[in-house]
Amino acid sequence: MTQMNQQIVLAQRPQGAVTAACFRLEEKATPSPRDGQVLVKHHFMSLDPYMRGRMDDTKSYAASQVLDAVMGGGTVGEIVESKLDGYAAGDLVVGMGGWQQYSVAKAGEFRKVTNQIALSAYLGTVGMPGVTAWYGLNKICAPKAGETVVVTAASGAVGTVVGQLAKAAGARAVGIAGGPAKCAYVVNELGFDACIDYKAEGWKDALKAAAPNGIDCVFENVGGEIFDFILSRMNAFGRIAVCGLISGYNGEPYGMTNIRSLLVNRLKVEGFIVSEHMEIWPQALGELGMGVATGKIKYRESVAQGLASAPAAFMGLLKGENFGKQVVKLI
Amino acid sequence: MTQMNQQIVLAQRPQGAVTAACFRLEEKATPSPRDGQVLVKHHFMSLDPYMRGRMDDTKSYAASQVLDAVMGGGTVGEIVESKLDGYAAGDLVVGMGGWQQYSVAKAGEFRKVTNQIALSAYLGTVGMPGVTAWYGLNKICAPKAGETVVVTAASGAVGTVVGQLAKAAGARAVGIAGGPAKCAYVVNELGFDACIDYKAEGWKDALKAAAPNGIDCVFENVGGEIFDFILSRMNAFGRIAVCGLISGYNGEPYGMTNIRSLLVNRLKVEGFIVSEHMEIWPQALGELGMGVATGKIKYRESVAQGLASAPAAFMGLLKGENFGKQVVKLI
Repeated sequence: MTQMNQQIVLAQRPQGAVTAACFRLEEKATPSPRDGQVLVKHHFMSLDPYMRGRMDDTKSYAASQVLDAVMGGGTVGEIVESKLDGYAAGDLVVGMGGWQQYSVAKAGEFRKVTNQIALSAYLGTVGMPGVTAWYGLNKICAPKAGETVVVTAASGAVGTVVGQLAKAAGARAVGIAGGPAKCAYVVNELGFDACIDYKAEGWKDALKAAAPNGIDCVFENVGGEIFDFILSRMNAFGRIAVCGLISGYNGEPYGMTNIRSLLVNRLKVEGFIVSEHMEIWPQALGELGMGVATGKIKYRESVAQGLASAPAAFMGLLKGENFGKQVVKLI
Repeated sequence: MTQMNQQIVLAQRPQGAVTAACFRLEEKATPSPRDGQVLVKHHFMSLDPYMRGRMDDTKSYAASQVLDAVMGGGTVGEIVESKLDGYAAGDLVVGMGGWQQYSVAKAGEFRKVTNQIALSAYLGTVGMPGVTAWYGLNKICAPKAGETVVVTAASGAVGTVVGQLAKAAGARAVGIAGGPAKCAYVVNELGFDACIDYKAEGWKDALKAAAPNGIDCVFENVGGEIFDFILSRMNAFGRIAVCGLISGYNGEPYGMTNIRSLLVNRLKVEGFIVSEHMEIWPQALGELGMGVATGKIKYRESVAQGLASAPAAFMGLLKGENFGKQVVKLI
């Protein structure tokens, strides 16, 4: 009997917000690995904000998601069949298997990992989101002890790591997140100095109070009105790592009015995509992996169960309904 | 008989646009230099867009202009009396003498220049505006041969130098300026590859056509709608030197809608003030001075005659009515 492979494909591009109609669940025969390939059974797959950008066919940093093709994305799982030297059934690997139960991959498309930490962590804190945090904080923000770092989407896969790395560098870490539960988590569990609930009345005054000496570094995941207000609170020679602008993905972009701060405060702003900085991945993954293994870097996950739950979980992620790194458990 | 010194002081801060009522012409006795000082008779004084920012009392990079005090600004002139070793009457000097006929200065507040080039050039191409162009282009934009550089306020004191340095670096230089005369000047006289008249219908399409391979470097002097549109035409890994945002000085700031380009194109944006980079001045002034002396770098001036003409000339500068570096001739 042929082993079947459930997949989710892009059925249509979103007109504004992503809806369930954008996706279609299909079932195909599981492929067999050819010479030089391995067949991987996915344990977890990753849902990330960058996927929203790829669903459009406008110019962006990544190639557009192809219509009717399996949604791309990170996966972690085990090799179930290997025709590649040096790899055997049972090996644990991280790759870009996409929104499906099985995938084939060749050398260079995946890396081996160990089960010394939870496998799903390789999709978050010890994976692309964690390395994203590491790069933006260390290579663009480079906070000095005593400086104030603000991170938006603070309770998310990237933001949680940014704040903890900022604290380790001796900086003041101020998060911005949606709702009291997320804010309580980053302060009480992760050690942020403060967290602002942007859904609460008076969040601007609260941010002023939480950064009484102004803002030196920003790790920007959101954009829009929050980013615009942050600009007005920057100190001279501030640095801003632009990692995501999720608020602009649907509909009309927000009109930013505090751009003059760029000049007045001689800011450095840099947009980046961590996949273009592969040279720092080994160091970053090593530090993040040890941080998680020793309990010095904490994380939290929102786990959706089963492939069919992925579209709803992804739509929730775009609305901030997840709490911590969003993954889908497949087995 | 006491030699009198005419001065222009800040009479009141502008409410929106600068008006004549913001200034007051006064006459005081010319000061005498004390030990360690020189008395300078100004030949030319400089009018620059940065002065508008200093007229407000909001937070900015420079200290606010003090009410009822002489307007600050660059000057070039000759020493008429010296009580400072190494300096004698007749020496030509550049300093920050302000909007007046005479000033006293001590060591470190001025530098000697020669009359191998026109004195007024030390207020423009071989002065602060020229060094501003040199720094932003070489240290932030750093264009490679074949790349496309866009400079706004292209016919101004800074923009003219930016375009000529970009051409010398082998880049394609595209200016943006107000009106056909300014555009013809930067193309025909200065050698820019193209110039877009932002006051003309269809300027966005014209800019697209003038930068058919997209934009790699921007030297931004203006801000507002033009800057926002430029953002939408940037290439991956583009660099933007933010030197001035003159369009935001009066009234409501423009709402920038293309901020997402920062991320999509992994842009580097940097605001800067050239007075904070004194280490590059000797090299920049040397190169610019030789460029002017050999005729390789050209410039043009708008010359207002007499101190009393300064307020109107300054208001014209803020509206783009000048054509080339705005100076006031005092003798």
